[in-house]
Amino acid sequence: MTKKGNLIVISGPSGAGKSTVVFKAVENRKDVCFSTSVTTRKPRAGEVDGKEYFFVDLERFQEMVDNDELLEHAEYVANSYGTPRAYVEKQLEAGLNVILDIEVQGARQVHEKMPEAVMVFIVPPSMDELKRRLEGRGTDTARAIEARLIRARQEYREADFYKYLIVNDDAEQAARELDAIITAEGCRFENRAAILQQA
Amino acid sequence: MTKKGNLIVISGPSGAGKSTVVFKAVENRKDVCFSTSVTTRKPRAGEVDGKEYFFVDLERFQEMVDNDELLEHAEYVANSYGTPRAYVEKQLEAGLNVILDIEVQGARQVHEKMPEAVMVFIVPPSMDELKRRLEGRGTDTARAIEARLIRARQEYREADFYKYLIVNDDAEQAARELDAIITAEGCRFENRAAILQQA
Repeated sequence: MTKKGNLIVISGPSGAGKSTVVFKAVENRKDVCFSTSVTTRKPRAGEVDGKEYFFVDLERFQEMVDNDELLEHAEYVANSYGTPRAYVEKQLEAGLNVILDIEVQGARQVHEKMPEAVMVFIVPPSMDELKRRLEGRGTDTARAIEARLIRARQEYREADFYKYLIVNDDAEQAARELDAIITAEGCRFENRAAILQQA
Repeated sequence: MTKKGNLIVISGPSGAGKSTVVFKAVENRKDVCFSTSVTTRKPRAGEVDGKEYFFVDLERFQEMVDNDELLEHAEYVANSYGTPRAYVEKQLEAGLNVILDIEVQGARQVHEKMPEAVMVFIVPPSMDELKRRLEGRGTDTARAIEARLIRARQEYREADFYKYLIVNDDAEQAARELDAIITAEGCRFENRAAILQQA
């Protein structure tokens, strides 16, 4: 049966272990792909248009914003990034679930533009554990870590529009939960009700 | 973390293979139990009160109906059957997911009294396949099978309030889907949001 996939939006504080959980969850699934963002940033050596990113100039980016061609967009270090709606829709129509890993503010934009998108928030078991993980990475100064913790608390307060919450205490368990969410959302009545009408 | 379980209501036409799917889905789960119905039917030899059923007299049953102590109730062959709300709530509070296998009309009553209950409709891949399965069981006359098919079509028309639809083409796959639904529903944001407030 050909049915539309779901857009799975994943957010969570830096250090929550999102990437690990996502990759474990989807590694054996053939019905999942990742969203490709559009950016005004210049391609780096080896980057291919349409693979890492869709590379566009600022004029084209602004046109996409004006024409509502982006599900969300944001600025980061003087460059613009966004999620092209048409590209996502094409994958969904092909029956693929599309994973979109973005921050809470972008996720809120997607939630408003595409209410059927499945919003998943991934958090560490506690703020103390988040601090330990960030310290363990050894990539941030103490001040940068403090800023990340403040930001995480801010995100928690804004996260009330998510549908699912995964606590990444054990990455295997968290990945099983994300895998289950993707499967369960594919079983939603409204996506399959056509089967009953054919009966 | 102690969290409330979910009531999982499962319906579907006779011959859809519900029991097989349910038992395969829950056989390795420790967080699932089955609801126990209350009935006015007399216990058969070996039946234990509180195990197969809670056995009550008609007066007590009527009192339970009047006091809204039942999530749903129905008559069947001159006996009354119902789902005791207090018993279900006790299991949910203990963190268990409770499975309730009932017909569409009873499921609608549960849906109205407990909107957070998770409604799952399980169907065979087609009416032709349902007919083949019912014939294969060899327990029904041709006329009884015809009546079951008419009833299945009727249930399909009334099933619009279910949240999930599982097509039991392959029982292993259907069981994986039900298992995923139970897991995913345990990850719902509102059930876990307390974790964020503690952060």
